[in-house]
Amino acid sequence: MVETESRVLVIGNKNYSSWSLRAWLVLAHSGLPFEEVRIALNEEDTDEKLERYSPSLKVPVLIENGITIWESLAICERIAEQVPSLWPSDPIARARARSVAAEMHSGFSAIRNQMPMNIRATNRNVEMTPDLEIDIRRILDIWRDCRSNYTSVKPWLFGDFSIADAMYAPVAARFRTYGVRGNATAESYIATVFSDPHMKSWSEAAFEEKEIIDVEEIGIV
Amino acid sequence: MVETESRVLVIGNKNYSSWSLRAWLVLAHSGLPFEEVRIALNEEDTDEKLERYSPSLKVPVLIENGITIWESLAICERIAEQVPSLWPSDPIARARARSVAAEMHSGFSAIRNQMPMNIRATNRNVEMTPDLEIDIRRILDIWRDCRSNYTSVKPWLFGDFSIADAMYAPVAARFRTYGVRGNATAESYIATVFSDPHMKSWSEAAFEEKEIIDVEEIGIV
Repeated sequence: MVETESRVLVIGNKNYSSWSLRAWLVLAHSGLPFEEVRIALNEEDTDEKLERYSPSLKVPVLIENGITIWESLAICERIAEQVPSLWPSDPIARARARSVAAEMHSGFSAIRNQMPMNIRATNRNVEMTPDLEIDIRRILDIWRDCRSNYTSVKPWLFGDFSIADAMYAPVAARFRTYGVRGNATAESYIATVFSDPHMKSWSEAAFEEKEIIDVEEIGIV
Repeated sequence: MVETESRVLVIGNKNYSSWSLRAWLVLAHSGLPFEEVRIALNEEDTDEKLERYSPSLKVPVLIENGITIWESLAICERIAEQVPSLWPSDPIARARARSVAAEMHSGFSAIRNQMPMNIRATNRNVEMTPDLEIDIRRILDIWRDCRSNYTSVKPWLFGDFSIADAMYAPVAARFRTYGVRGNATAESYIATVFSDPHMKSWSEAAFEEKEIIDVEEIGIV
């Protein structure tokens, strides 16, 4: 395996791009050095800029020594090959962490469409629909199952921070923005997410961005 | 790591459940012993049966020694931990294989919704929409990129069969059912998929199933 000399993560707006946040959090927690390239979404030249980096025209994209790796989950797996502690070390916990990560990756369309991430926003209202209620209940079940099975002392879903937490961090942000009433486990987990230094640094950067996008209209989910 | 003594894959109808096919193909190619439990979808007692096995109420689900692992991609990763050759051995090829597998896992909603898998069907028509055209073109690009980069002799996307192929096998089935005109690479890749002995055995079982589901209506994708 060639030693990696350069690592660039291409991301969208920190305020809006939940998939960028996922990959970025994992890279930040990995301790590996990386640069970031931010491409503001929904601008006139967005597609032109994306074409330079991304075969699927989506963010995030990781470029390691000129090799392009796309899709947040594939990027996370690539980073975890270099820093295995990003998955739980126990094989059963690791399989479950991959299950909940993949469930987030492919599902929860009601949450993703009806509650788009907007880190700067507070006190947003969202109309509760049956699909949204099912999604929220399932998320609360996942968080409770993980927390009850894996730890009482360490605060992340599987004890130490893992890729599963990166996948659910944007959901924590949404629950806070839209005032979703969870339960004690959810409250405490959301607090864990927001007390993470890397999450704090991402959020601060989101507050400094100037772009305003009507995410519900253009469907950045 | 505990030696696995029992391995059960819970699947849906072989004719319709494309996600079940993906996990099943990987398990079949792994050479690991497993049993299968088939739950016919869209029946009166489907949910009741699913509740016994599946925390997300979806198929497929893998149960190893009583441990439940869900989501096709997480199931594939779990099997690949036991049979690493299910991913390409070269780290760059492996990262790309994970990128295209994850892209299938989370995307292509037009193909999944407008061209539901129906292995028994032939000569189906589908109205071409801009979204469907974009999806089809992207799939053809992925197949061409993989095939041109990784092999001229071995017929799968990354040379030998990998999890990426399992992710795209149901797309090959759909292209055949709906008569999608691809290119020489696509034609040859679809032929590779259908000449696989495990794919043949799954298809034969699909032809023996009696259930008829209006997949477009209920949205098994």
